Amino acid sequence: MNAVSDDQTSLLHQAAHAGRAAARTLAMSTNAQRNAALHAAASAIRQAAPAILAANEADLAGYNGSAAFRDRLVLTPARIEAMAAGLDIVASLDDPLARILAEWTRPNGLRIKRIAQPLGLIGMIYESRPNVGADAAAIALKSGNAILLRGGSESFWSGQAIHAAISTGLRAAGLPDACVQIAPSTDRAFVAAMLAAAGLIDLIIPRGGESLVERVRREARVPVLAHAEGLCHTYVHAEANHAMARSIVANAKMRRTGVCGATETLLIDQAIAPALLPDLIADLRALGCDFRADAAARALIPDLPAAREGDFDTEWLDAILSVKIVADLPDALAHIERHGSEHTEAIITENPEAAEQFLNGISSAVGLWNASTQFCDGGEFGFGAEIGIATGRIHARGPVGPEQLTSFRYVIIGDGQIRP
Amino acid sequence: MNAVSDDQTSLLHQAAHAGRAAARTLAMSTNAQRNAALHAAASAIRQAAPAILAANEADLAGYNGSAAFRDRLVLTPARIEAMAAGLDIVASLDDPLARILAEWTRPNGLRIKRIAQPLGLIGMIYESRPNVGADAAAIALKSGNAILLRGGSESFWSGQAIHAAISTGLRAAGLPDACVQIAPSTDRAFVAAMLAAAGLIDLIIPRGGESLVERVRREARVPVLAHAEGLCHTYVHAEANHAMARSIVANAKMRRTGVCGATETLLIDQAIAPALLPDLIADLRALGCDFRADAAARALIPDLPAAREGDFDTEWLDAILSVKIVADLPDALAHIERHGSEHTEAIITENPEAAEQFLNGISSAVGLWNASTQFCDGGEFGFGAEIGIATGRIHARGPVGPEQLTSFRYVIIGDGQIRP
Repeated sequence: MNAVSDDQTSLLHQAAHAGRAAARTLAMSTNAQRNAALHAAASAIRQAAPAILAANEADLAGYNGSAAFRDRLVLTPARIEAMAAGLDIVASLDDPLARILAEWTRPNGLRIKRIAQPLGLIGMIYESRPNVGADAAAIALKSGNAILLRGGSESFWSGQAIHAAISTGLRAAGLPDACVQIAPSTDRAFVAAMLAAAGLIDLIIPRGGESLVERVRREARVPVLAHAEGLCHTYVHAEANHAMARSIVANAKMRRTGVCGATETLLIDQAIAPALLPDLIADLRALGCDFRADAAARALIPDLPAAREGDFDTEWLDAILSVKIVADLPDALAHIERHGSEHTEAIITENPEAAEQFLNGISSAVGLWNASTQFCDGGEFGFGAEIGIATGRIHARGPVGPEQLTSFRYVIIGDGQIRP
Repeated sequence: MNAVSDDQTSLLHQAAHAGRAAARTLAMSTNAQRNAALHAAASAIRQAAPAILAANEADLAGYNGSAAFRDRLVLTPARIEAMAAGLDIVASLDDPLARILAEWTRPNGLRIKRIAQPLGLIGMIYESRPNVGADAAAIALKSGNAILLRGGSESFWSGQAIHAAISTGLRAAGLPDACVQIAPSTDRAFVAAMLAAAGLIDLIIPRGGESLVERVRREARVPVLAHAEGLCHTYVHAEANHAMARSIVANAKMRRTGVCGATETLLIDQAIAPALLPDLIADLRALGCDFRADAAARALIPDLPAAREGDFDTEWLDAILSVKIVADLPDALAHIERHGSEHTEAIITENPEAAEQFLNGISSAVGLWNASTQFCDGGEFGFGAEIGIATGRIHARGPVGPEQLTSFRYVIIGDGQIRP
């Protein structure tokens, strides 16, 4: 990624200039025109399903990595249909650009409006899952942004085939091809050129493993929207409903263990642990979960493996749960502040005051009361899809849909005012 | 600024940790408490006026720069009163944290709220004007953010005296001193440590000349909110009211020439130029303005100095105006896109369709119709003050007041939902 290449830099600059010109066209387009492009792209993806499957075969033929990664790479007719359906859903969302965010009149008669506006050109850097490119293109288009996709080398041919179908949709709606571009090669120097393109690319969104995101953050001279880690907590409060706690904890940990919204640490009040923790552990064990427990939890359930230094700072992304008994709610908040990643935390309680204290006491992007942390997802938020999840403090947080890919500008209407 | 120093890094880390702890207290504080601190700080500034003036004398005694910079550095009883009044005005604004930005319910019954939240710890790097520190502290406090000020070495003693008064106000309201801190020395390595403090400082705001802003942008590993240049345009459309155009153009250029919202380039339609441009030039000449004009303007007014290569890309910040005759509105938009800095542009016209086309055709942070570009200012927007002006595409644009120093988080309320 550090390699610099004049050829790749020049390719990137060409693509970025074309993308910026397309972004200006998109910024002036109507919601109807952008929706027409999304629906046409969905149709084109459905029609191109055989070609996309063939391209995916070519990628799989050259792949020799782990089975888990291979599963992310595989496309099936059902996955292709889901990708197309995602484009249709994004088209059905409200227009994120037709929004006056605020409007007021000054004593001198100036009328000030704050109006939503696209960001411009988005650079999307992702790993092997081919559908990420289609989701990202849909959200960018809906919000009037041009996008430049750079997928992983393992999914190169799948990405090109999906991109070709999206281009067909753009043409059908009379929008420039350069609204959605894909990197023409898998040369890593192209990524380095993207990260250096301050003033040409307005925002970089990395989506993939922690090492990808870290490298992008470290090297980028362009603003980056990303999440570092998802070290999510579920806190079972003393006044939790037992059945609800069992259902939510099992889901929050084990529904899918590899997603960033999966719970990595269970915190449970000492007042309720003797009555409830054995059931929680038994449920999770039945689902194949392993544990790293503090001394207090092991005093209750001696066969739990002991947590070591650093376990409470580990995003397992696996069927492993860190378990800790806390004294009370402030103790839980202190643990989250020290070990959390400001991603997603949940409290299970029947006590509304405790819920409020918890939800106000965390600074995480998403806080839930009596629901599973696995709901941290653009689709579950009603955004149709997501282009990523953000845990920084600036611009956007949580799942990022079309509305969060906009910024704003001020329009001021006067009748000759000059400043004294 | 490149110098690295272990001592200064350790000082910065101490200050940042204290600031982050104070930010957590502020995030839980009430609007009434933050307002009490602002009013108490205003009183303390008024009471400390003699001490602040004496500190300013000490700064001035050691200063041997230009007269223009010296004027920015000078404090008077009237300027100190204006600083105190600014704190009172910021206190009177609506609470930027008591805002539910959006709220909706999902088909599964989950209630999702997007709630305003402070950013955390702001790092403010500014040059010689001592009042910038007070304005920035007021806006940060109002929005629940802690702030670390690092002013110019020329205003070191003035900054310390103003900071002491603000600390008095914080104590009176029962808020931690570390809500507003000031760099303990003028060592440039402290600035380098601030710029490197990713994860400790949430946002850096540089305020000063272009070279300061550029260095901060280049070196910072922390997100930066800034404006690069203010290359602002006033476009006089064919259907402009003559008297209004004369009044606005004179104000937009000459009210104050050193501010970023000053007009640097006048664009005027060829259809109206013969009748109007001579009057505009005569008005500006009477105010001491000089010109750099294109060939078409010089054909009308031969004694205008000729524009050279690069003049239309120059932010004069002086009594100089670039002048160009354009064919029509699209020609004006094309010029702004090529030469502008996405800061502030104005159109003067009586034709509403032309105004709309102009205001939608620019992507600048602020667009005005029939008003002076010098209105690009937090006070004029009704923000009480401003902590800076942003021209990036991400997070905030235009004058930045308390509301734009917030981000958001999601709060989700369920009754046991698990994800299928």
